[in-house]
Amino acid sequence: MIQKIINPQPAEWESLCQRPELPVLDLQQLVHEIFTDVKKNGDTAVKKYTSLFDSAVTDNLKVSDKEIDDASVLVPEELKQAIELAKSNIEKFHASQKEETRIVETTAGVECWRENRAIEKIGLYIPGGSAPLFSTVLMLGIPAQIAGCKEVVMCTPPDADGNINPVILYAARLVGVTAIYKIGGIQAIAALALGTESLPKVYKIFGPGNQYVAAAKQFAQNYNVAIDLPAGPSEVLVIADATCNPDFVAADLLSQAEHGADSQVILLSDNEMVLDAVAIAITRQTEKLPRKDIVLKCLKNSKAILFESIEQCVAFSNIYAPEHLIIASDNADVYSDGVTSAGSVFLGNYSCESAGDYASGTNHTLPTNGFAKNYSGVSLDSFVKKVTFQKISAAGLQNIGPAIEIMAAAEQLDAHKNAVTIRLNSLKNV
Amino acid sequence: MIQKIINPQPAEWESLCQRPELPVLDLQQLVHEIFTDVKKNGDTAVKKYTSLFDSAVTDNLKVSDKEIDDASVLVPEELKQAIELAKSNIEKFHASQKEETRIVETTAGVECWRENRAIEKIGLYIPGGSAPLFSTVLMLGIPAQIAGCKEVVMCTPPDADGNINPVILYAARLVGVTAIYKIGGIQAIAALALGTESLPKVYKIFGPGNQYVAAAKQFAQNYNVAIDLPAGPSEVLVIADATCNPDFVAADLLSQAEHGADSQVILLSDNEMVLDAVAIAITRQTEKLPRKDIVLKCLKNSKAILFESIEQCVAFSNIYAPEHLIIASDNADVYSDGVTSAGSVFLGNYSCESAGDYASGTNHTLPTNGFAKNYSGVSLDSFVKKVTFQKISAAGLQNIGPAIEIMAAAEQLDAHKNAVTIRLNSLKNV
Repeated sequence: MIQKIINPQPAEWESLCQRPELPVLDLQQLVHEIFTDVKKNGDTAVKKYTSLFDSAVTDNLKVSDKEIDDASVLVPEELKQAIELAKSNIEKFHASQKEETRIVETTAGVECWRENRAIEKIGLYIPGGSAPLFSTVLMLGIPAQIAGCKEVVMCTPPDADGNINPVILYAARLVGVTAIYKIGGIQAIAALALGTESLPKVYKIFGPGNQYVAAAKQFAQNYNVAIDLPAGPSEVLVIADATCNPDFVAADLLSQAEHGADSQVILLSDNEMVLDAVAIAITRQTEKLPRKDIVLKCLKNSKAILFESIEQCVAFSNIYAPEHLIIASDNADVYSDGVTSAGSVFLGNYSCESAGDYASGTNHTLPTNGFAKNYSGVSLDSFVKKVTFQKISAAGLQNIGPAIEIMAAAEQLDAHKNAVTIRLNSLKNV
Repeated sequence: MIQKIINPQPAEWESLCQRPELPVLDLQQLVHEIFTDVKKNGDTAVKKYTSLFDSAVTDNLKVSDKEIDDASVLVPEELKQAIELAKSNIEKFHASQKEETRIVETTAGVECWRENRAIEKIGLYIPGGSAPLFSTVLMLGIPAQIAGCKEVVMCTPPDADGNINPVILYAARLVGVTAIYKIGGIQAIAALALGTESLPKVYKIFGPGNQYVAAAKQFAQNYNVAIDLPAGPSEVLVIADATCNPDFVAADLLSQAEHGADSQVILLSDNEMVLDAVAIAITRQTEKLPRKDIVLKCLKNSKAILFESIEQCVAFSNIYAPEHLIIASDNADVYSDGVTSAGSVFLGNYSCESAGDYASGTNHTLPTNGFAKNYSGVSLDSFVKKVTFQKISAAGLQNIGPAIEIMAAAEQLDAHKNAVTIRLNSLKNV
């Protein structure tokens, strides 16, 4: 059921890298309307859309401390321990991304450095639906806490009874989210971007979501709000050679395929037997999956491609620029140097994508849809600004001042030049 | 002429931080038209708009090697040496931003790390006009070279004779720009975003520009192209105490004011005599400036505000979030810890903004318009993707696998769970 392609010519590679065309809703008008309403009517507008779209009536948009206390009791101990392990690993990896301040004396008397400053107010969006995506709460909340963001506001849609899944609430408290609101969809993004009586206006919005949420995040940028990443469906590309385990590879492809019919999975190999063995394993494993229907739809968009060498596989992968890249080979280390564009890379036969999705420590918020060519995934960097500082002594300015005067004059910026000249002259008179 | 405000109440601070309202052109339609034309007709469309908007006829869009050779001869030796000094400092500071690969073992057998990969194809936009902004060529080209970007394509509008200022060409070659095109405005951004017969499609576009260029960069994001920063007029905020030199402060404010009538300059102090002394110095210095008319227009939008303490000045500055922050005080070091939002900070009486604009080593491409709340300035980071890697051994998966199984099951993602289970089972059978 996965389409097999043998030795495509390089001229065809670009078109093989095309993601499936999605039916794009034109949501501009709707998003604009809801933002305008929320700007004008605040909480009242937010409640109106919550009732309309989520069929939920909520008197209090904000989740109370008691609700979080109560939720905590409902989370099984085994799950709490699993979350604790994941949290510990995510913390270790993201804490290692802290940047030491390094003062560089570029010229005698001229010191330059960077200091990290947390983005003070951020918003996290966590989708609702049948499955509670508490892992995303960890992936966004933990680096925010390490960065030192002061206000970490979370929005997630309530169910029809006005409740939030207890594991979401438990995870949010665990990672220091400062306020949780029962709001979903476009109205949640509007509330975060604009502020209301209940919600502070935030400076950056993080988190996944459906097309409505994605369109709203895009639009929020018109209100000087930053966003984590452009949106797109999830995807995995697996490069497998003769040393792979076809059952493992099939399981990895299927774990991506269950995300949704618009997900894409790609398998590359230099060995046709690997492609065939994986195809057989996919058929066998799919039968047992509860999300079989979704998986089958996704596999229709997917491809298994034979190349002449693993180097060719890597070259193709760099053009595809996958969100997740698994190198299922005992020689993964050797091949990984050639990778130029990917969100997160999984090396070897035991590094499955679901490890990175939950608990290895890397972030699972990654560039999709080819954006790995120009964007990094979410990391500690996403929660800070790197502010540059410079401290120039009188002697330092005497060293670089004449060059600045010459350059400013050549750019016809006389006042720029004068800011140096007036200082250098004052030093001559000492 | 600069408006003086005494001890504003905190409730007024937010409105004092408003940037001047600019007449915003609605360029959506024009940008859309030009992108569509360039997509369909490539170079022909680009040449048509170059003739239309820049009144320049160009047979060859690409600058030839001979043109660059010839330009090099025209640059005065003194300016070449000044550029060399600036280049050396910019290189040192940006090279210091390289990130060492740190492998973190988050759990025994689970190794995670990041590796930097250059964005392979980038576009630099350098505005035309009377002054040649070769300093921006350095600020964008040097970190691109350090990052290892393979294709660094520059666009800049030609004059009516179809020529580019020689200093621009000289600087571009010096920093390893791989191709230079005589294209400006919306058509340049369209050509970079879409590619034509002459130009490669790039993955990220950097550089300043007028409203047309800014609108085009914004629009280019619809074609999966990233951009450096949202656009806005330049600005400086100076915090000065009794230890400042009012002549220096005035010169710094004026060096910002000459950028354009839409620039904004703000002076804060805890000492009214400082405000008055700076105002007198501004009047005296303005008289001598060639760009006096621009400066006077800019000063109309500008404010000098007295606060009760320098701590209050810093608190106000953090809400304003200036692109450039000068702390004109012998005690600048003490105050700088309190800075939470600024693009680049200049400490002490000899650290003038023009040093950072040209030659101290820091980058001058910075967040304006309050974006210092949520964006960093351009740095080496802007030219790379930070790709995460993970390598999990069989023992490592045995350590974290059970937690992943529990979390995946709780998120109702059975195929995610199965990717772990199938591996753990295979290990049981060994």
